[in-house]
Amino acid sequence: MYKLVLLRHGESVWNLENRFTGWTDVALTERGRAEARRAGRQLREAGFAFDIAYTSMLKRAIHTLWLVQEELEREWIPVEHSWRLNERHYGALQGLNKAETAAEFGEEQVTAWRRSYDVPPPPLEDGDARLGLDDPRYADLAPAEFPRAECLKDTVERFLPYWHEAIVPTIRAGKSTLIVAHGNSLRALVKYLDGLSDAAIVDVNIPTGVPLVYELDADLKPTARYYLGDAAEVAAAMEGVARQGRAA
Amino acid sequence: MYKLVLLRHGESVWNLENRFTGWTDVALTERGRAEARRAGRQLREAGFAFDIAYTSMLKRAIHTLWLVQEELEREWIPVEHSWRLNERHYGALQGLNKAETAAEFGEEQVTAWRRSYDVPPPPLEDGDARLGLDDPRYADLAPAEFPRAECLKDTVERFLPYWHEAIVPTIRAGKSTLIVAHGNSLRALVKYLDGLSDAAIVDVNIPTGVPLVYELDADLKPTARYYLGDAAEVAAAMEGVARQGRAA
Repeated sequence: MYKLVLLRHGESVWNLENRFTGWTDVALTERGRAEARRAGRQLREAGFAFDIAYTSMLKRAIHTLWLVQEELEREWIPVEHSWRLNERHYGALQGLNKAETAAEFGEEQVTAWRRSYDVPPPPLEDGDARLGLDDPRYADLAPAEFPRAECLKDTVERFLPYWHEAIVPTIRAGKSTLIVAHGNSLRALVKYLDGLSDAAIVDVNIPTGVPLVYELDADLKPTARYYLGDAAEVAAAMEGVARQGRAA
Repeated sequence: MYKLVLLRHGESVWNLENRFTGWTDVALTERGRAEARRAGRQLREAGFAFDIAYTSMLKRAIHTLWLVQEELEREWIPVEHSWRLNERHYGALQGLNKAETAAEFGEEQVTAWRRSYDVPPPPLEDGDARLGLDDPRYADLAPAEFPRAECLKDTVERFLPYWHEAIVPTIRAGKSTLIVAHGNSLRALVKYLDGLSDAAIVDVNIPTGVPLVYELDADLKPTARYYLGDAAEVAAAMEGVARQGRAA
């Protein structure tokens, strides 16, 4: 009935440095740009021609989208930005190295922060320069709404209103839709679409730069889901994401 | 009261080849990309931080805008696309070399097509592959509305409704506004803003990749206008545009 494509941004500078990024606005690496171009070529070869795209307020997602648009020669389609598609806010961990954090707090604690459904990391405190309350891109966000740290449950709760109010009507209108976002904002959507339990989502890893196609029925229930590209490469990429939280 | 910035896209492949481009969707050259980045740096150094941007449906304008956004770190601002900001449609001249066309038809005829206010070039005929009636980006355009060739007067007439209905309310709402468009769609706006006669606009040349700042009063009448960057370089760039239609 409908096809929806999800794409996690290509490798960013802080993916490469293995640092917690969250809402920090870091750029793609050259490899990340190449991943985005490859995703665009895969989408073109599979015949996708999007009418609209949704993305976050963060440049690693936006640049990924731009490179995909360039490969598809669809630079002219409307693009909607929302903070609700931003990466999970990583609170006081933002900027810290994942392996160092694991060495300091223990792998178990870091795995809990990274992967448990409802354990938020330590929050940013008032006055922390990383908070960004005066960032003009978030001018619509009331200070009380502004995340200080999020668990995945929080990300689900702030993502789903946008899904229902903005994206669902677009898909139902028959528009071919692309969402370019982040590891955890996309996990939030996958959890919802596939009806995964709080426990089951913990083991879902979404690789960077690989288009994930959902086929949806008239009620927007998934009838199929698959990654574009070589299956073995996709599996290796997912394993790479799972490994990042380990100390060694 | 208000500042508005106009920017003509950087050098395109067909600017370089000295060909009539019009609605043909050609890419920037490397020099064009560098021009766009320089414009972005000039805007950043001058303290511009746009809330919104308007551009055409053509990639040479869109890529220019993207490079400016990247330099300004404003990738997240809303961008509105409209065919009404497209370059003047060059009809049956699209794709032809300007110097060859001058050698064939005479410099006087080419200057008339390029610069007179109300002499359109020969139109595209039915069945010409360059017409693009099935291009999805123009799906909102009725076949009768679809340009076959435009003189500058036609471009003014299709640009101004968008100015009044979309851009003016945005400026009046106090949003810092950038328009990235094309030599002739920007000349259309300059003619209107500055109240130039049909004869006076013929001598106005807008260089590629140089931000043109308009200061507007409460009635959106210009109180000042100036290019950013080195005055001698800007003058040389304008002279280069004026020279393109000559045979030698």
